This record gives sequence, structure tokens and C-alpha cells, in this order.
Amino acid sequence: MYNAKAYSAAGAASPFVASTIQRRDPGERDVQMEILFCGICHSDLHYARNEWADVMPTVYPCVPGHEIVGRVTKVGSAVKKLKVGDLAAVGCLVDSDRTCPECRAGLEQFCPNMTLTYGSVDKHTGGPTYGGYSDSIVVDEHFVLHVPENLDLAGTAPLLCAGITTYSPMRHWNVTKGKKVGVVGLGGLGHMAVKFAHAFGAHVVVFTTSPSKKDDALRLGADEVVISRNADEMKEHVGSFDFILDAVAADHDINAYIQLLRRDGNITLVGAPEKPLPVSAFGLIFGRRSLSGSPIGGLAETQEMLDFCGKHNITADVEVIPIQKVNEAYERMLRSDVKYRFSIDMSSLRDR
Amino acid sequence: MYNAKAYSAAGAASPFVASTIQRRDPGERDVQMEILFCGICHSDLHYARNEWADVMPTVYPCVPGHEIVGRVTKVGSAVKKLKVGDLAAVGCLVDSDRTCPECRAGLEQFCPNMTLTYGSVDKHTGGPTYGGYSDSIVVDEHFVLHVPENLDLAGTAPLLCAGITTYSPMRHWNVTKGKKVGVVGLGGLGHMAVKFAHAFGAHVVVFTTSPSKKDDALRLGADEVVISRNADEMKEHVGSFDFILDAVAADHDINAYIQLLRRDGNITLVGAPEKPLPVSAFGLIFGRRSLSGSPIGGLAETQEMLDFCGKHNITADVEVIPIQKVNEAYERMLRSDVKYRFSIDMSSLRDR
Repeated sequence: MYNAKAYSAAGAASPFVASTIQRRDPGERDVQMEILFCGICHSDLHYARNEWADVMPTVYPCVPGHEIVGRVTKVGSAVKKLKVGDLAAVGCLVDSDRTCPECRAGLEQFCPNMTLTYGSVDKHTGGPTYGGYSDSIVVDEHFVLHVPENLDLAGTAPLLCAGITTYSPMRHWNVTKGKKVGVVGLGGLGHMAVKFAHAFGAHVVVFTTSPSKKDDALRLGADEVVISRNADEMKEHVGSFDFILDAVAADHDINAYIQLLRRDGNITLVGAPEKPLPVSAFGLIFGRRSLSGSPIGGLAETQEMLDFCGKHNITADVEVIPIQKVNEAYERMLRSDVKYRFSIDMSSLRDR
Repeated sequence: MYNAKAYSAAGAASPFVASTIQRRDPGERDVQMEILFCGICHSDLHYARNEWADVMPTVYPCVPGHEIVGRVTKVGSAVKKLKVGDLAAVGCLVDSDRTCPECRAGLEQFCPNMTLTYGSVDKHTGGPTYGGYSDSIVVDEHFVLHVPENLDLAGTAPLLCAGITTYSPMRHWNVTKGKKVGVVGLGGLGHMAVKFAHAFGAHVVVFTTSPSKKDDALRLGADEVVISRNADEMKEHVGSFDFILDAVAADHDINAYIQLLRRDGNITLVGAPEKPLPVSAFGLIFGRRSLSGSPIGGLAETQEMLDFCGKHNITADVEVIPIQKVNEAYERMLRSDVKYRFSIDMSSLRDR
């Protein structure tokens, strides 16, 4: 074990403070990385504040962060995938059982025994896993990804969660050139969805409650912007969408969007409202429409996504902050006061 | 125009009584049939009692019935598909626009300009369409189906709605040998779903709130029966179903069934509860599951279903009644006091 610098929270109501955590020394299949940037995901806040107590009670002190980009500093003797000096990334998972049908299918995001990047039990140490608000991390090579050299690293970090969470369902539901695709909610996830749908060649329509977001949506790649509170505007699009990605975690009327789908169209939830969404059966029956959900992606698909981003020069729009501003960033995230994701420059932690 | 015998209701609170309606004389593309049997569908009751006033207000007097089996008595000069003496059937549609993308794809059930068998405007006469509680009907040949000669005709009638409504989504979601398939609710639709899923070679599990239905479910083709109120029994099936057909129109907890789906599993609603169903986003996200709906099928698929039934000797389990008992049958249907569908022997109308 070795000491790593980190920012941790000691309780649900405690701010993040500089601290020291213990990480395992890299084993023969492990990769150790110096963390360069870590994105801030809303899940980090839910976990730090114990808002998922029912399903995943927080173990304190906690170190969130699962949008991690860095440079390899050490590799175990059996590591083949990466070498010292490589740019690398880690997302929401750092391990899985490798033997279940989901893992064998390359769909580790559905493994019943996955190890999350933070808040899980580290199989090697028996202690908790600590995320990317830290200066380094040690991860099994299978869960470490290559980062294309041409990408801006601060904007690359959010690809590991916000990116793959929107890329994966669009690939699964076959978003391609000529399809009409809606994106509901222009935040961290939504703005990535717009970039991907545009890059796939789809006709992209952004739904937002804020007229002020219109110009930005168009800049990000939207072909049209619909103000969802305007019933007339909504009506013009009834029955016309092949696919809609719904990235809104707040309560909203899902039936209004189901109506916009064409026959066999699908709307996929990637934001998870706390309360159940009331769904009208008729909207699904007439048009054989479907409502589904999607989590992150598997390792192979996450690498595919990063390579796609390299080819199309896609990164998240980020506001780079030093780790010392993480508490303030959480408050601003709650007010949606960020375009569109915070990315922590981890040199601020090393130089403290 | 000619006079046909029928049973009609004069208002939302009026019983069905013997009456005379006018039907068009068969045109060059029309088929005239003597109606032998007509199934009673819950939609008939909704329509007769104006329970869909918001979307489809009832025009009185009304003659419901869209599960129609009969024998061809006359064909127009251009009719090629059927000849006098053929066994024939008519389901929920008697016309569509024939030109929209849905019609061109053979998916008339999604045509925005469909003509329903009852409660629509007849393009030819400008009057209302009248359904199968009648001694004859005249329908464009495209909407008339062949009935395999080996099938019991009373049990064939319900195939035209209850049958195709359950057959179509199972074909769409690829129910095949080796798949694990659930059927929620063992009524008119559910009992057909069990028969089809069994015939497709699936492992069929029936969910019911009534332990008394267990033996019958097994007789119909179920491999297992789960009492859905028993949480322990439900728990054993978490994450294991490829497909679930939900035929329950009453309020029920859809999330309990979503949890039973495996990764990428689908649950399709064919019953339509009046109130929106509260759906938990998490149940869909973890497992990339989907919830969808499905109406009837197109004409080509309905013929495919009838041919499949002929090959596998599948018909509905029916209680045959004379038309004079239709009012009583409605009351019994409301109490689910029928195994599993009423089929009206229309000779009772001709001989009155």
C-alpha cells in the first residue's frame, strides 16, 4: 500500500477537504496512473451526500470521481495493454467478475458483481474503492482505456461517464445518418448526446425549457431547438422521431415525448428521476413505441467511443477548476450553473 | 344498400336489442359474408358504453364486434382473393388509406387513416361502420382473411383481435424456442398468449393473482405458474425473462415485472390501464430493459397468424352464446366470469 493525495468528504454534510488515502501497490495485472483530470458527475454528489442510502449507503470518508484521465506511471509484469507514459482513462468500473455471461459478452456494465470506481469493496485490499479526486489510481488493465493523443484532456475526462452513457444507447438503438433524433435536456449528458448524434449524421432536435440555451444547442450540433413548454411547437413533431434520448433527472412529462416518436420509435432514459414516471399505456400501444433505460457501456464500447471521439475530435465542453473549488462546484452544479461539465485539473492537488 | 339484421345499443346505458341496419351492396372489390360467429371483446363494451368518449365518442345506435368469422356469400367483379363459399374472417379494420408508409409496409394497424370495423365512417356510404353483431357484413377484400378449414369456428373468431394482439408482439420481440416468456393476466388475451408462446417453443410462465387459475394455465401450455402476490415466488424470477406480455388492463405494479426481465428484455403492454402506470427509471436503466406497447397486427401478419393456428390447431377457449344473451355476457365479462372469451353463434340472430 502507498499514500495518495485526495480530496475526501467525512460525512453527508461535510465539505471535501485535502486528505491522504491508501491505494494498493500495482500487482502484476495493474496499471498505476497519475491522474491529470477528473470530471465531476452528478453521481459524485449523490454519493458524497449519501442520497442513495437505500441502495448504496456511502462509506466515509469517501473520494468520488469516475471520469478519470491520466498518464501511466507504472505497469505490472503481466500488463500488455498499456505502457508507462501512455495516456489512459478510467470510468465507472474498476473490476467485474469476468466470468458471468454479461462479462463474457463484453458488457461489464451489466455484471452482477461489478466493482465501482468508488463506493465498492476493493477485491485486492478489502477496503473501499476511492475515485478520481486524487493524484493517482491503481486499476486492473482490463478496466483502463487508451486515450487518443489528439484530444483535449480536460474535455476528455467527462467522456468516461457522460460520454459513454449517451453514446451507448444511440449505438444500441441504431442512430445513423438520416434518423431523426431528439435530446431532452441540455446539460452534462445532453450536450454530449447532441455532439454524438450530430457526428452520427442524424437530424438532431434539442428539447429544452430554456430559450436561452437555443444558440448553444445549435453551436453544439443541433439542427432544431424546441421549447418544450410550447405545446404548438411540440405538436409539430408528433410521430416523427426515430429515437429520443432523455437526459432529464427532474420530474417531467414523459408522455409528451412518447407521442413524438414514430412507429417503433424508442425513448431511452439516462437521467433517473427519483419518483416513478407516470406512463400512459396508450402512447406506447399506438405506434408500438418503447421506453427504455441505459446505464454506461462496457469496456470495449467505451474504447470504441474514445476512438470515435479521437477521429471526430469530440470532447465535452468543460469548465476547468482546481480541486480546491470542488465544494463550490457542487453548489453550482445543483443550480445547473456550468457549461457543461466541471473538470478538475489535478495538478492543483499535487502542487498543494 | 340492403337491410341486415343486427343487435344494437341506442345509448351508453341502453341494452342491446334486435334491430335492422343498412349495409352497402358489395362493390367490385368487396366481399359479402354471412357472419357465423363473432367474439365479444372488452373494447366492444368500452365503445357501447361510450367509455372512450374523450378520444372516440360513440355514435348511436352502435353495433360492435370485430372478431368476425363467416362464409363468403357474394364477391365483386374485381375480387381475386376469395370466392363464394370460402370461410373468411374480419378483424378490427375494414379499410385504411393504402398509400401511407405504414400501409405500404403492410402495417395497416398504424395507418393514420384507418377505418375501424365499428365506430368509424364508412368511406363508401358516409355512414357509420357497423361491426359483427349482425348476420352479414360487406368488406373490401384486402381486409378479409382466409380461415383454415380445420379450425373450430366459434374459437376462431377471437383470433381476430385477442389472437393477433398477442401473436404480433411475440413475433416482433422474437419469441422463439428456448426463450423464457411471461404472461401477466390469464384472460381473453392472456390465454391466447400462453398458447402462442407454448407453440413457439418458449418456456412459459403465467403470472396470476388467482391460485385457482393454476391448473388451467398449465393445461393451456404454461410451464410454470407464479402467484404474483407472493413476493418470494416473484423474487426467484428476477432478471430471468426475455419477454413478458402484460395483458392486464387494471392498475398493477409494472415495476415488479420490469425487475424480472433479463438484460435487454422487453415487457409489452397489450392491456391499457386507464390511469398512467408509475414506472421507475432505475428498473429500465439497470439491464437496459424496455417497456413497450402493441396494438393488433397488419393484414399480412393476421393471415400469418391464422395460418399458424391452422397448422398448430390453435383456437381460443370460448363459451358460445346466442346473441340474445349479449347483455348478460357483458355483465359476466366485467366480473371476468368467462373462460376465456364469449363467441356469439350468429345463427341465433338469423333464426329469431
